[in-house]
Amino acid sequence: MAPNHISINDVGPRDGLQNQPKLLNKEQRLSLINALVDAKVPEIEVGSFVSPRAVPAMAGTAELFAELEHSNSLFSALIPNMKGFELAMSAQVPVMSLVVATSNTMNLKNIRMSTQDSIKVCKDVLKVAKEQGAKVQAYVATAWACPFEGKMSPSSVFSVTEQLLDAGASSIVIADTIGAANPLEVNQLMESMACRFDLTQLSCHFHDTRAMGLANVYAAIMAGIRKFDASIAGLGGCPFAPGASGNVATEDVVMMIEQMGFSTGIDMALLVKAADLAIELTGTATGGKAKPWIENYYIN
Amino acid sequence: MAPNHISINDVGPRDGLQNQPKLLNKEQRLSLINALVDAKVPEIEVGSFVSPRAVPAMAGTAELFAELEHSNSLFSALIPNMKGFELAMSAQVPVMSLVVATSNTMNLKNIRMSTQDSIKVCKDVLKVAKEQGAKVQAYVATAWACPFEGKMSPSSVFSVTEQLLDAGASSIVIADTIGAANPLEVNQLMESMACRFDLTQLSCHFHDTRAMGLANVYAAIMAGIRKFDASIAGLGGCPFAPGASGNVATEDVVMMIEQMGFSTGIDMALLVKAADLAIELTGTATGGKAKPWIENYYIN
Repeated sequence: MAPNHISINDVGPRDGLQNQPKLLNKEQRLSLINALVDAKVPEIEVGSFVSPRAVPAMAGTAELFAELEHSNSLFSALIPNMKGFELAMSAQVPVMSLVVATSNTMNLKNIRMSTQDSIKVCKDVLKVAKEQGAKVQAYVATAWACPFEGKMSPSSVFSVTEQLLDAGASSIVIADTIGAANPLEVNQLMESMACRFDLTQLSCHFHDTRAMGLANVYAAIMAGIRKFDASIAGLGGCPFAPGASGNVATEDVVMMIEQMGFSTGIDMALLVKAADLAIELTGTATGGKAKPWIENYYIN
Repeated sequence: MAPNHISINDVGPRDGLQNQPKLLNKEQRLSLINALVDAKVPEIEVGSFVSPRAVPAMAGTAELFAELEHSNSLFSALIPNMKGFELAMSAQVPVMSLVVATSNTMNLKNIRMSTQDSIKVCKDVLKVAKEQGAKVQAYVATAWACPFEGKMSPSSVFSVTEQLLDAGASSIVIADTIGAANPLEVNQLMESMACRFDLTQLSCHFHDTRAMGLANVYAAIMAGIRKFDASIAGLGGCPFAPGASGNVATEDVVMMIEQMGFSTGIDMALLVKAADLAIELTGTATGGKAKPWIENYYIN
């Protein structure tokens, strides 16, 4: 990979769609994924293997994987535990994603497990994954702030990351789950991470909740991070919580990255079409700000 | 001034209001300015002394200055030329702002003068201002990109800045007039500027046209800049041009700056009230993203 390459993982079909009020059917979800494939997005989070009662938007993810055509895009799915791992293995999912929140309170409220118990579950899955040759990455959630505990300490992020990498996670995504991080602390944490871990195994995940989404991406790039999650059309967030915006919009992230001279390999014109489709399908996504600039006024 | 202090100049009442479709009357303009004064915004751009036929929204700026009460906020006004300077002097304007675009084509299209002729006009004004003890700052517009000429060279920015400072400008505002700059080039230009000029005489002005507004503010802070323009509720932009967003929203800029540990001296709760008023008065401003976080969820 060229040193100026930055890789994008579009989490819109999972993190985005599961936080929209409208449930899409299999064909609609597939059309969005295929639009991202057409735009040459290198990685796409397709769905998750969680309880369909808890997250109805992600029901039928196995059927979705069965219908995906071979492409250059790498497909992933979220798995909460060993059961999810088994379902994902059966569905021949190329990359699986585990999640651990650094905040103990967040883990307890979210999955009724302490952070350490959650790490234990991940370690068990990673052990089996290794035996079966499966590729599993892990999210370190609430890495900067938690709505219950406030600011998180960098040492807790180092500790969770180290345990998950040691247990065999292929890479770690440092996530600002609630969109509360500011670029100064993003840069500081990721520079500290760069001293302790292999940069090529690190990625970042930001929300635009407080308008700092792109600032945080830039701050992480300056710390050496070369892989980011983003969500097409800024899909995501909770429509019932005021101000809870979605992930950073893929089209905005890609435009900034390309404008700065990095390369993503993504077809920006087709990415705008994928964003239009996401807006049309969900009826709630607003889209990023990049569209008119990519279409008409791009200054390179 | 403490080393961690960052100063904000709210340009909403001028750059913002003149780009809104609705004309506000004197009382409405005054109420917005007073809301910013109440929020302790250190500098406020009140209006401009341009032809009321060309810019009807700014008609009556002299009358506005006559009604401003004494406060801790420093008031400024835009002046296009010697005529504007004379009008501003009569209105006892504390700080006046001149504008020169680095792009020759932009100057020709906008004010039918070359960049060099425009600098000549500024020098003449600055000479008289010095004699009369008036404080005049200058904007270097289209500092990164011009819609006609594309990317601008840093050397043209250095040259214009140097000429204006030598002629007596009190400070220089480096402006991304069309909101096309990315944070990498913002950081690069401002670091180069920091090597050539006194940082305390430099300020930056960004638009959020491409969602990079706060990223650009952060990138300039990292280069040492400690003064920024911003517009309450993101007021501004041209409502008739798709995607032409306003200035970075003051409330978002202030929230980011304060969250990073810098101090602005601004009352954030009252700043949100000023943003609400801007939205109410104009009917078009959308406001930044900071409001619910400042009101309910602030994590410090």
